[in-house]
Parts: sequence; C-alpha cells; structure tokens
Amino acid sequence: MIQIGVIGAGSCDKRVAKLAETVGAEIAKNDAILICGGLGGVMEAAAMGCKAEGGQTIGILPGNKKEDANAYIDLVIVTAMGHARNAIIAQSCDALIAVDGEYGTLSEIALSLKMGKPVVTLESKWDVEGAWIAASPEDAVKIVLGLFLTR
Amino acid sequence: MIQIGVIGAGSCDKRVAKLAETVGAEIAKNDAILICGGLGGVMEAAAMGCKAEGGQTIGILPGNKKEDANAYIDLVIVTAMGHARNAIIAQSCDALIAVDGEYGTLSEIALSLKMGKPVVTLESKWDVEGAWIAASPEDAVKIVLGLFLTR
Amino acid sequence: MIQIGVIGAGSCDKRVAKLAETVGAEIAKNDAILICGGLGGVMEAAAMGCKAEGGQTIGILPGNKKEDANAYIDLVIVTAMGHARNAIIAQSCDALIAVDGEYGTLSEIALSLKMGKPVVTLESKWDVEGAWIAASPEDAVKIVLGLFLTR
Amino acid sequence: MIQIGVIGAGSCDKRVAKLAETVGAEIAKNDAILICGGLGGVMEAAAMGCKAEGGQTIGILPGNKKEDANAYIDLVIVTAMGHARNAIIAQSCDALIAVDGEYGTLSEIALSLKMGKPVVTLESKWDVEGAWIAASPEDAVKIVLGLFLTR
Repeated sequence: MIQIGVIGAGSCDKRVAKLAETVGAEIAKNDAILICGGLGGVMEAAAMGCKAEGGQTIGILPGNKKEDANAYIDLVIVTAMGHARNAIIAQSCDALIAVDGEYGTLSEIALSLKMGKPVVTLESKWDVEGAWIAASPEDAVKIVLGLFLTR
Repeated sequence: MIQIGVIGAGSCDKRVAKLAETVGAEIAKNDAILICGGLGGVMEAAAMGCKAEGGQTIGILPGNKKEDANAYIDLVIVTAMGHARNAIIAQSCDALIAVDGEYGTLSEIALSLKMGKPVVTLESKWDVEGAWIAASPEDAVKIVLGLFLTR
Repeated sequence: MIQIGVIGAGSCDKRVAKLAETVGAEIAKNDAILICGGLGGVMEAAAMGCKAEGGQTIGILPGNKKEDANAYIDLVIVTAMGHARNAIIAQSCDALIAVDGEYGTLSEIALSLKMGKPVVTLESKWDVEGAWIAASPEDAVKIVLGLFLTR
Repeated sequence: MIQIGVIGAGSCDKRVAKLAETVGAEIAKNDAILICGGLGGVMEAAAMGCKAEGGQTIGILPGNKKEDANAYIDLVIVTAMGHARNAIIAQSCDALIAVDGEYGTLSEIALSLKMGKPVVTLESKWDVEGAWIAASPEDAVKIVLGLFLTR
C-alpha cells in the first residue's frame, strides 16, 4: 500500500484545517494509507478527513502515551522520541504533503527531500526548491499519485 | 484497538515458527492488532498467522527500507534506528508476547517490564521475574487479553 | 561549558572548509565545546580547526561504527539512528552555526529554531527567518557568545 | 580513547554508590572516558568517582534538558528519546560495566551483548550468559581493559 504523510502544525485555523481535511479525504478515496504525527491541528484534520471516507490512519507520536493520539487515528506508534520522530515519519512515507506549517514543517520538508522522498506543499510559506507546489488539496494528492503511476 | 507485540529472533526453527504463527492467529481471532519488528523468523511467522485469520499487522523496521518488511506486513514503519527501534515497539504495544528468543528478545522483555507493560513469555529461555509464562500460544494471548478485561 | 554545534554538508569545497575551520578555531579560543556530526566536509574542517587551537570536539555519528568519526573527533557518540541523530545534535547544543549546507542543513536549522535554539548562518543559501546571518566565521562565534553573555 | 560505559539504577543505596564511585575512579586512573546515562544513583556516583581522579565524563540523557545532568558530567548529550537512549549508550561504548541494577540495566546488558560489546557485571542480580562477573570494582575495570590489551 502507498503510505502518504501529511505534515503541518499542531494547531491551525479553520481554513487550513479544511485544506488538511480534504487532503485526508483524497488520500482515502485513492486507497492510500495516511501517516501523520497523530496530534492536533493539521494532523487531526487530515486524519478526520481520511476516516470520513473510510480510509486508514497511522499516528506516529512524539510523546510516550498512546492516549495522546487524536480521535481519528487507527494505529498508534508511540516513539517517545520528541522531534526525532519526524525522521521516522519521513522515512516511513512514500511521499509527503505539507499543509501550511511552521519551523517543524520546514524541517520535515527538508529532511524528506534529503531522503529523496517526493514532497508537495500546499499553501506553505516555505518555498523549498525540489518540492512540488500544489494549487489545491485534490491537486496535491493527484501530484503524489501521478509520481507513482508514472514510475 | 488493543495493540499486541510479538517479539522473538529474526531466524528460528520450524517448531518455534509454528508457535509464533499460532500466536499471530490468536491475536487476529481476538480482534487485536499485531505489532512486530517486521523482519523474518518469529516476526514473519506471527505476521503470517495473523493475516491468515484476517488480522492486521504493523512492522516496525530497524533499517531504512520499506522493502525489508516481510510479505505479511500491512503497514510499515521505517525507523532507520537499529536497536533503538525496540524501544518504539515496546512503547507502542499494550502488552508483549515473547516467543523463544535470544539477547535481543531479553532486552525487549526487560525494557517492556521497565515501562510497566505486561509481558508474557512462551518457550523462552529467559525467565525474568515479573513476566508471565504461557503454556501454549493460545494461553499466551488469553493471558494478555485477560489482563485488559479484568482492568 | 557552552556546547556549540557546527552543521553543514559532509563534503564541501576548500573555501567553505576554510570557513568551517575558522569557526572551529574560534570556538576553541573562546573555551566552548564543539559538537558536530562527526563525518567529513564542514564537520571535519570545523573539528580540525577546533583541535588546532586546543579545543575539544564531540562527534554525534549517524552510523553504527565509532571508526566512522573523522580524525579530529575526541569523543564519539554512536547513534546508529541515521537522520534522527540531527535532532540529538540540535538538542545537545546551546547554539548552532550553519556553514553553507544543503537540505540536511536546512532541516537542522529549522529543527533548532523549532526547539528555540539560537542559530547563526554563514554563507548559507537558506535564509530562514529567525536565524542570525554572520558576515564572517569570527562574527558567527561572536554572535553566539554574545547571546549567552547578555542573558 | 577507550570509552567505557557504567550502567545501573537511577537511585541506589550507599553500598552500591561506593562501588560505582570506585569503578568511575578506576576508569579515570586508566585514562579511559566514562560514559553514563547522566542522571542520579549509580550514574552520579560513577561520574563523581571519575572526576575525583581527574577523568572525563559524558552523560547521555533520556530527557530534553541539559540541566538534568548530574553535577559531575562534563559533556552532555541531550537525546530527548527516553529509553531509546540506552541503545545510544551501548553503541557508543567499547565495553560496559553494570553495577547492581534493575530491569533497565538488564535491558542494557542484553542489548550490549546483542551488539557484541563486552559486558562486565558487578553485584548484579542478573546473571546473563556471555557477561563477565567481576569480584570488585577494580576487577571490573581490569577485566574490561584486559580485553583491549589482549586484542
């Protein structure tokens, strides 16, 4: 199964949450697995969107408690490794979609590119060379899936 | 969902593989998720048994390639962290079942007990105080599930 | 003791190596400890500069062999954690100086800023808001030490 | 430089602390570096003994604050990785000495043996095949150093 990561801040406004939710829904509609950091904000909105369309979600948590996962996470990986869990997220995904985001997201984008993973950004303030820029949530998932179909 | 870890060596004889396979099957029959290290031996046999009964499997790999996962793993977590991935397995499980096993398994048993996780051993040469000793694969899963029912 | 990280690519041209070497030398002259990734390029040049001035160096390696450390590393931390070791470098430093650098360095800059660590860049192509920009190696170390003196 | 790990519980009685202190002192007298987990109990006593003899100490912390290190740690590695930091300690040491200890120590002994590192136990309740058993702190360090001299 294709495992797609959705990364972004742990808290976000309604507009960004709506974008993340639609990304999650598109991932489910395309029969891919959603991987995220398992917490709130973009992570929660994406997982919610994915579950609403019958998809499956994995949350890779930074802390040491399974209960930290948001309500839309099916399978919980408890790393207890703080920021180092970002490397596990990047490494476990076939491609990543960054929605909006701050320093943590920039770090994850750069790390994923370093690992040679395809990265698509959506309404991100970080314009990192090598990352695709998507015009919409649907476009973001389409770019990611297109990469695997054409391989 | 209850997440049960099955730990053991990366290569094993047929008798031990049969035990692990039955543990995996029992986990599936009881609607729990199987977590393992994703490689061969006990990990592969347990995952195979779980899939044969329609269960779901997560492999938490020590290396950096998704392709290292055995054929019975549904969801792959690529840690690229070597032995440190054992801590993630222990931390992510509600309880662990150790089948046979060498130093790596002993380390995982001790670490899980340190974290306060219930540990059941099956035909293990390591007799660590605080771990339950199961008489059979069915017994091992029964002990684990009994712990959650009686809580 | 103040622990200052020097980050940058594992291979670099002579001009960048000279910059890194001078940063390392300045760290030693100011009685701080140098932390780096322990490999070649910017890491090796900085450690060499530090040792030439009688300073002390720590290398936090991504691989699993102590022998991977360059010849100028005094104390070797063997993480066997690949890219996740970057989080340990950032977390262990009081401040970080990025010299030139590619995606890995950008990831490290962003992660350090996320952790609230002061970051100074020197001839970096990445201009990340929140990071200081140094005009020279001497200036980079001066900025870092100034932050601690004025606290 | 030879890097020797001293492992044991984070709190201990005076007798065990005295043993650990002597182990630390012997490490310093033999010009080796002491690596430990950086916290209290056996770790603190060993570091204190090492410093009293002019040795150097590295603390590899499980938490995310440099300040968590005990007063006898020279160089602090902040992993923020909880129990996974044990793998980094084992991997970074040329040999390990376990003093007394509980589950965490047993886990570390087993992990070190799995990595092929020499392990010496001193007054440990865990008798793990493959580990040397020392009669005294001096004996423990002598065994470790003998292993390197005879190689």
